[in-house]
Amino acid sequence: MILYDLVNARRAHFSPNSWRVRMALLHKGLPFEVRDVLFGDIPSINAGGDKLTIPTIDHAGELVTDSWAIVHYLDAEFPDTPPLIAPGAPAHVLKFFQYWVQTSLHGPIGRLILKDLHDSLDPADQAYFRASREKSYKQTLEDVQTGREQRVDAFRKGLQPMRLALGHGPYIGGEQPGYADYLAFGAFMWARTSSPFPLLAEDDIIHAWRERCLDLYGGAGRKEPAA
Amino acid sequence: MILYDLVNARRAHFSPNSWRVRMALLHKGLPFEVRDVLFGDIPSINAGGDKLTIPTIDHAGELVTDSWAIVHYLDAEFPDTPPLIAPGAPAHVLKFFQYWVQTSLHGPIGRLILKDLHDSLDPADQAYFRASREKSYKQTLEDVQTGREQRVDAFRKGLQPMRLALGHGPYIGGEQPGYADYLAFGAFMWARTSSPFPLLAEDDIIHAWRERCLDLYGGAGRKEPAA
Repeated sequence: MILYDLVNARRAHFSPNSWRVRMALLHKGLPFEVRDVLFGDIPSINAGGDKLTIPTIDHAGELVTDSWAIVHYLDAEFPDTPPLIAPGAPAHVLKFFQYWVQTSLHGPIGRLILKDLHDSLDPADQAYFRASREKSYKQTLEDVQTGREQRVDAFRKGLQPMRLALGHGPYIGGEQPGYADYLAFGAFMWARTSSPFPLLAEDDIIHAWRERCLDLYGGAGRKEPAA
Repeated sequence: MILYDLVNARRAHFSPNSWRVRMALLHKGLPFEVRDVLFGDIPSINAGGDKLTIPTIDHAGELVTDSWAIVHYLDAEFPDTPPLIAPGAPAHVLKFFQYWVQTSLHGPIGRLILKDLHDSLDPADQAYFRASREKSYKQTLEDVQTGREQRVDAFRKGLQPMRLALGHGPYIGGEQPGYADYLAFGAFMWARTSSPFPLLAEDDIIHAWRERCLDLYGGAGRKEPAA
């Protein structure tokens, strides 16, 4: 099993969607190796005739792309490993959670760290990143990130449903971590590897949850070079 | 099966948490009768020695209170009816969704309709409602509701994860409605029975979802007197 994953200048893996998959593979105890790529490498990688997207796994020659599809693939191919999406359960509420992560974590976190993220990239990737992100945000990276000290409170306040859910146990998944945890944790690994900006107050229950997630599976998250 | 439920001056049932339970009972096809109560009746109702809270069900003499506990009770007592929480599935992500409903629907909707809700109540309940809510909001009902025309856009924007989830099918639960739908729908029934204020734009995919929910189970929601 090969996981294609992006690295920055410090060779830290920063893609939030790849962290979902990486934690999913660890959850299942499946061995895998990581193939590091830069944004600039992507066009030259043969991904079965399609442009490579991150994350992609290569399982004995079969390429599977998109974190949600990969998770379904892993549950189907490895039925004897701990499931990520409980069998018989409707996956829709988990999919809602993924959208919540997208709108309440990825969206605001991007606007808090985007310039730092650019600066953390391999110099060869910085021009591409700036051009593509400034086109999509319709602002300079500097303007996107500015004023973050004033905006971080609104971000923290928006995490209230997650905070309430963590009142029931150490993980969103309950006593044991589950794919919901990995969805949210991926967003925090994206920030951790890209920016020193403190996203969470130290007395926040979500901060304690993130510490627990950093320790999972031999400290996979904690070992990754932080910004 | 008896469901104790609050009514307003038009005898409309407005409690969002009762609507969850009502839809859950309909989902399972369980017959039930409704015992209408006013806030002012609650202290005089014998609920097994405890103060009655809404919703409470009385199932052959067994009182069960709290919507989340009721749903688990119904799944356990009636295993041959359609489940609300899929067997074997971790309920935690659904619980997260309930917290999201609490923070992204109940919270902002309350601040958009609170004065209307007061005005819709039976006159006997209005003084209690004003005193208790003004104590909890630390504002007059009028001040809580004021400026809603400017605030409704932020409310609508906050529904984005639900909007994205509804891009996959007619219900949050997928092809068929599930308890996640009833959690969200309860909040909209609370508003519909209490206030004429338009919460959703007519071209919003969530508006179309709400229309579908109003038609479920013989139009249970649509038949309820709207404000």
